[in-house]
Amino acid sequence: MTTEVQTETTTPRKRVLSGMRPTGRLHLGNYMGALYNWVKLQHEYECYFFIADYHALTTDYADTSKLKDNIREVMLDFLAAGLDPKLCTIFRQSRVPAHFELNDMLAMITPLSWLERVPTYKDQQEQLKEKDLATIGFLGYPLLQSADILVYQPSFVPVGQDQAAHVEITREIARRFNHLFAGDPGGASVVTADTLRRQLDSLENAPPSHGYSNDRIVREIFAGETSIVDPSSRASGVNPVLPEPQVLLTPSPKLPGTDGRKMSKSYGNTILLSDPEPEIRAKLKSMVTDPARVRRTDPGNPDVCPVFDLHKVFSSEETRVNVREGCTTAGIGCIQCKGWLADAVVAELAPIQERRRYFEAHPQEVAAILEAGNAAANKRANQTMQEVRVAVGID
Amino acid sequence: MTTEVQTETTTPRKRVLSGMRPTGRLHLGNYMGALYNWVKLQHEYECYFFIADYHALTTDYADTSKLKDNIREVMLDFLAAGLDPKLCTIFRQSRVPAHFELNDMLAMITPLSWLERVPTYKDQQEQLKEKDLATIGFLGYPLLQSADILVYQPSFVPVGQDQAAHVEITREIARRFNHLFAGDPGGASVVTADTLRRQLDSLENAPPSHGYSNDRIVREIFAGETSIVDPSSRASGVNPVLPEPQVLLTPSPKLPGTDGRKMSKSYGNTILLSDPEPEIRAKLKSMVTDPARVRRTDPGNPDVCPVFDLHKVFSSEETRVNVREGCTTAGIGCIQCKGWLADAVVAELAPIQERRRYFEAHPQEVAAILEAGNAAANKRANQTMQEVRVAVGID
Repeated sequence: MTTEVQTETTTPRKRVLSGMRPTGRLHLGNYMGALYNWVKLQHEYECYFFIADYHALTTDYADTSKLKDNIREVMLDFLAAGLDPKLCTIFRQSRVPAHFELNDMLAMITPLSWLERVPTYKDQQEQLKEKDLATIGFLGYPLLQSADILVYQPSFVPVGQDQAAHVEITREIARRFNHLFAGDPGGASVVTADTLRRQLDSLENAPPSHGYSNDRIVREIFAGETSIVDPSSRASGVNPVLPEPQVLLTPSPKLPGTDGRKMSKSYGNTILLSDPEPEIRAKLKSMVTDPARVRRTDPGNPDVCPVFDLHKVFSSEETRVNVREGCTTAGIGCIQCKGWLADAVVAELAPIQERRRYFEAHPQEVAAILEAGNAAANKRANQTMQEVRVAVGID
Repeated sequence: MTTEVQTETTTPRKRVLSGMRPTGRLHLGNYMGALYNWVKLQHEYECYFFIADYHALTTDYADTSKLKDNIREVMLDFLAAGLDPKLCTIFRQSRVPAHFELNDMLAMITPLSWLERVPTYKDQQEQLKEKDLATIGFLGYPLLQSADILVYQPSFVPVGQDQAAHVEITREIARRFNHLFAGDPGGASVVTADTLRRQLDSLENAPPSHGYSNDRIVREIFAGETSIVDPSSRASGVNPVLPEPQVLLTPSPKLPGTDGRKMSKSYGNTILLSDPEPEIRAKLKSMVTDPARVRRTDPGNPDVCPVFDLHKVFSSEETRVNVREGCTTAGIGCIQCKGWLADAVVAELAPIQERRRYFEAHPQEVAAILEAGNAAANKRANQTMQEVRVAVGID
């Protein structure tokens, strides 16, 4: 027995790193896509979660008037959602200078062409063409993101399916660094397209339902759907300074907003984690539904209805069965269906909003949590930087 | 009397910032182009001088095996040349994280096109085409240099005539930052071509001789030849966070190497500050001369002789008169002329080499000087970063 306990305490938990831009109060889409998973991960891994305040500047340098408020709101939402400073490290990117030093170091070895070919580079410039994004900071965004990750030498980066490719440039940059400076032969740990395809298949074949206060569904997500890409890919026989992080595929259901499009701040179709109950009910009441169901007496089709997509995430199985039955037989109207959804969403958000009220009333406690997190992050990041400096010969 | 003293002590000295890449032991060209001027400036200004160790990586990331030795040698040459830690702050770029944070901040607002059009960008890639310089770090080199400068909010950057343009992008970036974040109307402090021309005229009309152990000549250089470009250009009515630094034109005579080309490490034609006397004499003995003077009995022309260019810098006026007389009349041979030059160079380097021997024998004292310098630089740079963060709203 004693031996077992010793083994447990001497085996460190695998490290996980993720961050989020401070865009203001978080909505259900932000929550289900990231924060919800983070709250689960903090129990299993040594987690570092950060507010990517410098990244906010890459696209919004021209107006930073809301930045401070946005950082405050995101921090409150982190704590409200259940990130627990006793279980994980929460910090601000701007408070850990090692991010910037590693970024500048990696810049020396990162080909311009790698950054120019990142698919989001041209796309985003096109999408945000009212902003002047022809800056070196915007081009270098995936590099700073790579430094954000690598400076914690994490085993895993939790991302949704659509973002797995984003981690690939981080792995390439780490590989190049290790090849140049740390005696790594390079190219040893490549995630093949096949590996990714297998992982995606297993995700798609997993039970489709998501729900977060429902233990059964939580277990499904974290036992069945969360997949680790290529866990054996650490190059054999070497101990690289910047291990290539693995993608930890986490569920990121595409939540529809009230207009049926993807829930997104820029569409103005969001339900915020901090919306009061009347506002949640009002927003859901105006939500678009199956467009073919024109009259109350028409039967509807839940499979094309955005409201049902939210039921799938937030309602119990019992409610979902009742909705499908009532909708397809015109037994219930959309107003009633939306009322049930509102009940579920309000119930889910109740503990989150309670925690938010607590932290809103205790700003000094929030500041202290962030201070302690910043200090812990600095300690860990400086450890990496020291290894990096030794490898490069600039120690 | 008391009032005068008070005025003197309460008026802070203007700040000066300059750095040098650690390329290894310094030669006479490095010395006369920069270090010689720095030693003088430390008496008049609040000086920050740094070893640009991260910049060494922009071109030499592929082989960093000599980096540590090079840093050590440059530091010894700094102290040997007479930089006095009681008068100035000597530090390593890599030990002041604020350089990297400001670099990353300024990247957000710096157009790619500004960096792509820096004349040295394409030139250097062409010149060093055996190295892979298509990195974002190489493109961003002038931006990191701008951050190196601006993070100390200096009044002046001492540069030779041929480098004055390099400071211009730093001023442009500062102007853009102040315009975006600090309420500066922008464009208020432009150095006009006329201003520069006037400064250059006054440089050319000053007495031509340079010599550094000679008090008379030192006074000439630092009273007559050093010019401040556009000292009144700080924008009126505003107090920008990143004041545009002024160019402080310092003498930078082009020293020929032993093969008659510009003295440069890459040509292998240098005389090092730390070369022992026999090596200095041997190198100068083999130096090329007026090619038209083939036989001992041919008269020579000092005005086309690289050896005479060194006499102009290192020999007394008396020796120069004797050389011109002896050379043009074939009264002396080249060996004798080079012997006189060696005498002058050896005499000039004697106190430098004596200081070098002292610091080589006291590595802990050198380390302590650097530690103290790093701490002082961090303190000053963090003060700027705090102002920058407040201006941006990320404090």
